[in-house]
Order: sequence, then C-alpha cells, then structure tokens
Amino acid sequence: MNHLIDILQLSPEEIMELVNTACDIIDHPAAYAHKCDGKILATLFFEPSTRTRLSFESAMLSLGGQVLGFSSASSSSAAKGESVSDTIRTVSCYSDIIAMRHPKEGAPLVASRHSLVPIINAGDGGHNHPTQTLTDLLTIHREKGRFDDLTIGLCGDLKFGRTVHSLVAAMSRYTGIRFVLISPEELKLPRYVKEQYIKSRNIPYIQSTSLDEVMPELDILYMTRVQRERFFNEEDYLRLKDSYILTPEKLKNAKPDLRILHPLPRVNEISVAVDEDPRACYFKQVQYGKYIRMALILKLLNIA
Amino acid sequence: MNHLIDILQLSPEEIMELVNTACDIIDHPAAYAHKCDGKILATLFFEPSTRTRLSFESAMLSLGGQVLGFSSASSSSAAKGESVSDTIRTVSCYSDIIAMRHPKEGAPLVASRHSLVPIINAGDGGHNHPTQTLTDLLTIHREKGRFDDLTIGLCGDLKFGRTVHSLVAAMSRYTGIRFVLISPEELKLPRYVKEQYIKSRNIPYIQSTSLDEVMPELDILYMTRVQRERFFNEEDYLRLKDSYILTPEKLKNAKPDLRILHPLPRVNEISVAVDEDPRACYFKQVQYGKYIRMALILKLLNIA
Amino acid sequence: MNHLIDILQLSPEEIMELVNTACDIIDHPAAYAHKCDGKILATLFFEPSTRTRLSFESAMLSLGGQVLGFSSASSSSAAKGESVSDTIRTVSCYSDIIAMRHPKEGAPLVASRHSLVPIINAGDGGHNHPTQTLTDLLTIHREKGRFDDLTIGLCGDLKFGRTVHSLVAAMSRYTGIRFVLISPEELKLPRYVKEQYIKSRNIPYIQSTSLDEVMPELDILYMTRVQRERFFNEEDYLRLKDSYILTPEKLKNAKPDLRILHPLPRVNEISVAVDEDPRACYFKQVQYGKYIRMALILKLLNIA
Repeated sequence: MNHLIDILQLSPEEIMELVNTACDIIDHPAAYAHKCDGKILATLFFEPSTRTRLSFESAMLSLGGQVLGFSSASSSSAAKGESVSDTIRTVSCYSDIIAMRHPKEGAPLVASRHSLVPIINAGDGGHNHPTQTLTDLLTIHREKGRFDDLTIGLCGDLKFGRTVHSLVAAMSRYTGIRFVLISPEELKLPRYVKEQYIKSRNIPYIQSTSLDEVMPELDILYMTRVQRERFFNEEDYLRLKDSYILTPEKLKNAKPDLRILHPLPRVNEISVAVDEDPRACYFKQVQYGKYIRMALILKLLNIA
Repeated sequence: MNHLIDILQLSPEEIMELVNTACDIIDHPAAYAHKCDGKILATLFFEPSTRTRLSFESAMLSLGGQVLGFSSASSSSAAKGESVSDTIRTVSCYSDIIAMRHPKEGAPLVASRHSLVPIINAGDGGHNHPTQTLTDLLTIHREKGRFDDLTIGLCGDLKFGRTVHSLVAAMSRYTGIRFVLISPEELKLPRYVKEQYIKSRNIPYIQSTSLDEVMPELDILYMTRVQRERFFNEEDYLRLKDSYILTPEKLKNAKPDLRILHPLPRVNEISVAVDEDPRACYFKQVQYGKYIRMALILKLLNIA
Repeated sequence: MNHLIDILQLSPEEIMELVNTACDIIDHPAAYAHKCDGKILATLFFEPSTRTRLSFESAMLSLGGQVLGFSSASSSSAAKGESVSDTIRTVSCYSDIIAMRHPKEGAPLVASRHSLVPIINAGDGGHNHPTQTLTDLLTIHREKGRFDDLTIGLCGDLKFGRTVHSLVAAMSRYTGIRFVLISPEELKLPRYVKEQYIKSRNIPYIQSTSLDEVMPELDILYMTRVQRERFFNEEDYLRLKDSYILTPEKLKNAKPDLRILHPLPRVNEISVAVDEDPRACYFKQVQYGKYIRMALILKLLNIA
C-alpha cells in the first residue's frame, strides 16, 4: 500500500518520476483522460481549504475518475464522536484513494494505518503539506529546467510557514543549492530546520532582513503569506505583515530569469502590479499543482 | 473569450439562437449527452443558492461534463483574505467554465477580467441574474410560441425584484409588447427602469394596485416573491407580503391561454391550489432553466 | 412510480431480489459499471449524515451515474421559506432519483407525493432509515447464508434506536427467529414494537440486562450507539453509555460463527480490540451498505 504523508518519503528519483509524468500529462492530456475511469477519489477536508480541495478534484476528474467527500468537519461524522480511524475505514469502503486535510498533526498518518486505500496528506495543521511541495518542485523544474545549482530566496514568514520548511527539506537534497533566508527577526527559520536540512549538509546560506539587498543573487524567490492566525497578538501582525511586500520597484535589480513563486492565497505580500511580470510564476504554479496531483494519483493507484 | 454577465449583452438574435438550441436539446437529449465530455464546470457560490447551483450542475452533467466548486463563502479562500480576482485566476486553472454567484454587485464582471475561462454570472447581489432571465424567456417562447405581441403582467415586488427588472429590459426589445405593472405603492417598479426600458421605447404600460382588475388582459403573469430581506422593517413586510396572493378564484377571469411564471422559491404568493391549473408554468420553468443553461454552456464553450 | 420510504413496503421476496442483485454486483462489478450512465442522483440532506450520503454517492458513481445535491439545510432553499414539496418538485427536474434525509418524520413521504422521480428515504428523524435496514439484512444474509433460524441479540439503546426497531420489524417476517433484547431498564425496546412485531407473531424472545449471560446463544449480535442527543439529561447519558461495551473478554463465550454488526458511527460501545476478531462485521457492513444501495437504485430506476 502506498501513501503520501510527508514529502521526504519520496526519494529524489521518485520525485523526478512524478515530475516526468506531470510533464507528459501537460504534453499529452488526452492520453490521460481515461486513466482513472471507474475510480473514486474521496476528499476528506476536516478543515476547509478550497484551493487544495478543488485542485485534487480537478486532477481526478481530468483523469476520468470521480469525486466525493466533504469540505468541512461540521458536515462529517466527527461531530458524532467518531474517531479518525473509523471514518477512514468507512470512507475507504466508498473510494479508491483519499486526500485528507485535518487540523491535527499526525492525523493523516494515523489514517494511513487504518485505510484500505492510499491516503494523501492534503495538509495536517502546521505540519506537512506534501502536495504543495510537489507543486513547488514541479514549478521549479518546469521553469528552470533543473533542481541543481540554484540560489533560492525564501521570503516572509519563515517561522510558521510549513511550505517553506518542506521546500527547504526537499531542495536540500540536490547539489549546488544555496539558500537566502529573508525575514524579520521575529519570523526567522526555526533553528531545528536550519540544523537538520542546511547546516548538517553544509549547504551555503545567508540570512537577511532586506529583500532589496539580496534580490540580485536569486534564481528563485519564494514569497509567503504572513498569516494572521499564526500571531499571538494583533499588533505584531499589523507591524510585520507589510514588511516584505514585493513590488515592481523591488524587482528592478532581479535577474531576468528569476522565477517568483507563492503557495497562495496571497493577501498583499505581492503587489498585483507584479502579476504581469513574466518572472511571476504563482498562477502557473496553481496549474502545475493540478498536474503533479494527477501524476501522484496515478502513482499511488499503480496506474501506468 | 465569452462571458455572460448581463442579459443585455445578448442580442435578440443570440437569445433566439440559445432558445433554438434549448429546444433541440429538449427534442434530442441523447445527441447532447457527450458534448462536454472531459470539460469541467466550477460552481463558485460565495452566497448560497441551491436552486441555481443545482440547475447549473445538472445542466453540465447532462452534457457529459463534470462539476466542482463550493456552495458558500465560508468554505472558500475568501475567508483567508483572498481577492475575487485571485480566486478566479486560481479556479480557472481547474475548470473550463465558471458559474459564479456573489453578494457584491459587479463581482462577476471583475472576475471576467481575470479569468482564463468563460464566466457566467449566476447572480450578483440585487443586480443581475441573466440565466434566470434566459429561463423566463425560454419559458415564454415555449409556452406562447413567440416573443412579440404579448401583454405581460408583472406582480408583487417590482421594486427590489431584480428578475423583474431584467425581464422588462429583455422583453422591451420585441414588438407589440405591453406591460401591466401590478404592485402596492411601496413596491412599484423603480422610475429608472421605467424610463430606460419602457418610456424611452414608447412601450404601452399601465400600473395597477389590483391583480383582479387587470387579470383578463394578461397573456403572461409573472409572479414574484416578496422577500423579507429587502424590507427595512418587519411591519411593512407582514402587511405587504400577503397583498398579491394568486388563488384559483383570481384566475376565473383570466384568459384560457394565460401562462403563470414565477422565478421560485415561492413562499405563499401562489396558492398551492393553483399548481394543478394547466396555466401554471413555474415548475416547467424550472425544467426549462436546466435546458437553457445547457445551451448557454455550449455557446460559451464554442461547442456546436 | 417507485419510492422507498419504509422498509416494510418491501416484501421478503423483494428483499431477496435486492440481496441477489447486490451479491451479483459484488461478484461482477464491471458488469454494473455503466448501468446508470447518464443518470443523476440528487442527495438532499436537510440534516448532515456524511456516512449515508457518501454511501449513496459512491453507489451511484460506481454504477456510472452522476451526483449532485447538498449536505446540510443551511445551504438549501429551505432557509428562504420554501416547502419540502416545492424543493422536491424543483430537484426532480434536475435528477433521475433522489435520496433525502430530513429531521422531520414523514418528510420523505410528503416528498414522494410531489416528486416526478423515485424518492429514497435516507433517514427521517427518529423514524425510518430503510437503507440501513437493507444494509443489515444483506450483511446477515452474506455472513450467515440465510434469514431463517437465527438467534438475534440486539444490544444497547433499544428504546430510541430506530435501526433496531426496523431490523426487528424486518426479521420478524422470517421463520425460526428468536430475539434477545439486551439493554438497561431505561432503554428497553418500546412496548409497541414488541407487541406489533414480536408478540403478535409469537416469536420467542427474552429480555436481559446482561450481555455476558446471553452471549453464548447468539448467532447475530447487533450493537448500537447510545446517542447523547436522545437523552433528556447529561447524567443519565454518562451513567448508561458505558453499560454495554463489547470487549474481547465478553466474546470468549460467544459462538465461533457469531457475527457482530453495528450501524456505525460507534463511540466506545465496541472496543477497538474487537475490530480484528473475525466475527466483527461492522466494517464489512459498511461495504455491503454500498452494494445494497446500488441494487436499490437499479430497482427503483427499473434498470435490469
């Protein structure tokens, strides 16, 4: 049985295989339009996330499969006191594969131990969100043509942003990588992430509080949202949320082949004036997110 | 790129074309059962409306297409502060066409400027709801065989009822039309609607506070719901809501080929005793609503 | 027109026919994968029930059909004051068959009088839930090979548990049946159920407050959840909810071919340590629930 709970379960070879499948889907969509005929994806969102849910659903429908599920816990049996494992055993009688989002860290791992069908972690609390990382990786590979020899800037909330932590972990496995960590003091990358994935592998990195200063060096700029819900007090949130806003001016010193990524939704951390810049990639990234999920569903269902 | 935001975007010729397609679908449903194979409709309902949403979904499914979306804003990314244009750019990566309902007037127009796929306005606040008007038009044409030479009674809340305003605008383009505006003083058709679509085109009309008196003249009687949410105080609502209730008695003086329409849902403005009268058309209208939406989806996707 | 509102509408012969169809689906799923191509099931859940809704949806999708609907009343037109019959007449324009759950007893019966398409009662208040009973019956027949000559233990909340009442009613029509009613005094089977289905047919039964004592006699043990929402005060709920918990110890004296059923969701009335016991059937029962619903949809749509 195959599940995807944590991005690091996948070796660089397996990631490359998924990227290759996604690229083939992009080139030959019709060849994949019936790969999942008769298969059902269940989207179990114990916490709402429209973007992620619709991406999974669109992926499955474009493979010829079908979709059922729920979009918030209030409409689930959890309200009647049912355990996650019972819900999963039940839903695995109704579906061939499950994408699950849950506010509790570890819930998808528990689910995978009781499921009769593959489980995809579609986000568990502040923990893992491996299909976002796969989306980021496909975007990088499509846009830069490689995973090696890249200077990757990560900007904004590096403390709470789980997508940043997972991307650092995933990219630290390639050669020639350099990280540029751009954030206010209060939102720096946690020490354990730095130790585990950067220092222990002798990967060069710098930390900066100024996006302007480091801009000229970057091949990739990964912007993140400063999320209100991560702050203990409103004051800190208001002071910091505007600190690292990307504008056309800030891009003047950037490389012409820089690529700007963002996991979305954005609030105001990227000015809409940047949207039409050819270096802006965040909407393409949404599209890539669908294709890599199609590749993942095929892989977990063992459909060639 | 084609969008449908306002009914007046469509010329009478284009409306006739949609009506013809809908009639062909009614006669040959099997010929349309796979027209949208592989296509995805997104239903983005930032405000709930089961009836409209299910009509769109049924339309797309009966064309062989698939559906994804959300049925209320609480389960959308809007809650995370995302703009409508970002949501639309995202969802247009997941779908081939979008039906969108939004409490804010103009939101679907904004959406259409950022979408990669056709947008259908499925209702924006008290503003436009063009597929309801298309439904009304198909019903009139199917039941009366023509758009010209009709005396059209509009009864109930003519002030706030957007479906009435749009129907007046759409029907004012045909010849031989006469409007009979039946409402209490407080709920009369707004002056700007009268000026723009009736007086400026020299269309004959009368205003009446008595449904009984004008009944014998009508070819079409369009009933509307007196909506609680449009009133500033409860007292006015209670006094007026029962003023214009259609009963079998009131129909005694009506023409034998009168046709009664209602956009539904009704509360009590049409007595259930009227339902079995052959002149009652409001449930057929529901069915027509599905067919005209099928025709519209085909047109916007350029599927012949 | 066929509807399923109450399990007793179905004769033992019709139930046997549904069981046979379900068994054939289990053996030859591919032969059924396109039986409902082009058909639409509407799931109208005026009260949330994820398990039942997903079971219906999975059933229809596995027959090649499509699904639309809503999962709670808040997103339905009921909020605008529409009657159940109007909602049903509307939705029957969008679908070929309707599964409806409603908090009010009798609502599905009312609905069936106004619907243009078959209605399946998917639960109405504390009243009927006939597809749960069909699920129980298929499970019994698959696991025991017969409906006759069985000693059936019913344990837990026999007073409010509608699934118990329906199962008693349905099983009382076979020969050689014996009921063992296991519950605290406060939650005994209501007198009218006993009179109507057990005593009037001279079916042997015993009542017991001890699960342990009667365990060795049972062929079937039907466990039920003690539902918090059925109690008038919290104190009674807390005292009684743990009274009849099934554990591996309690199973030591049970027959080797006992089968344990539960309509799910469970809270703690069956210890998870029982899950791996080969006599535990409640997850298989979930799977059977999908197959019997497939059979029922085919029957009501007259698809052979």
